[in-house]
Amino acid sequence: MSEQPTPAQVTEFVHAAVPAVGRLGIEVLDLSPGYTRLRVPLEGNSNHIGTMYAGALMALAELPGGLLPLAIPDLAVVPIVTDLQVSFVRAARTDATLAAHLDPDELRALAARAHAEGKAEFVLDTKAIDADGRTLMTCRGTYQLRPARG
Amino acid sequence: MSEQPTPAQVTEFVHAAVPAVGRLGIEVLDLSPGYTRLRVPLEGNSNHIGTMYAGALMALAELPGGLLPLAIPDLAVVPIVTDLQVSFVRAARTDATLAAHLDPDELRALAARAHAEGKAEFVLDTKAIDADGRTLMTCRGTYQLRPARG
Repeated sequence: MSEQPTPAQVTEFVHAAVPAVGRLGIEVLDLSPGYTRLRVPLEGNSNHIGTMYAGALMALAELPGGLLPLAIPDLAVVPIVTDLQVSFVRAARTDATLAAHLDPDELRALAARAHAEGKAEFVLDTKAIDADGRTLMTCRGTYQLRPARG
Repeated sequence: MSEQPTPAQVTEFVHAAVPAVGRLGIEVLDLSPGYTRLRVPLEGNSNHIGTMYAGALMALAELPGGLLPLAIPDLAVVPIVTDLQVSFVRAARTDATLAAHLDPDELRALAARAHAEGKAEFVLDTKAIDADGRTLMTCRGTYQLRPARG
């Protein structure tokens, strides 16, 4: 992705790459260098007590570490998640959104390190919020960048 | 569930209660007092590099804390997950299974405490393995039992 795609195009790309994310209805609302914002709908993802299934929120938490490196052209890295810690603060009764930030210069430095040393680790702290801005879940994800092959 | 249902019946129950779990194809292979074992298929859950999507493994990790209390008649509690920590050890290239144990007497004591005090917390340590028995993911889940209403 060397040109900046629209959120709808990124969403389509993610659903094609990871169909299970598509079945959760997760949408990429924003993706730009250093920033992404995602939404998961309550509809289709409710649980036995009518609130959002924890797994749908966890999916929202996991994704940004994979997306943020895609928003910067020519890094030639593959992101993988190595560790995820989530705390559920409040039951979700609306759609949920989650925003993540990571400085583009830091991402470029991480990619350079991945190419030099074989891998480079980074940590993302995020939270999911409901339609009223209340915190639903806090998350710490640990990811590695590895050099893309070929 | 006061009689012991078959694994297929439990699977059907779980898919009806939480449709997103059904869309992941998660099957309950065993559920008896103090023990459960689950499987998630690679098919339908692959990612952009052909291995299993992390979110499918996380879903497998989250579920046992909700199922184990169901296997003991008449506890009259609702389990909720409050915290989940997963570490991804190895990329999954086969279906994955995960087993969880929690002493039935301990579950009964937890349920009694939930009814007396409003809630009772427990921790489950599990791991997901591949078809060759290799560890894919380690997980620590923290759950609460709350008294069922009505």
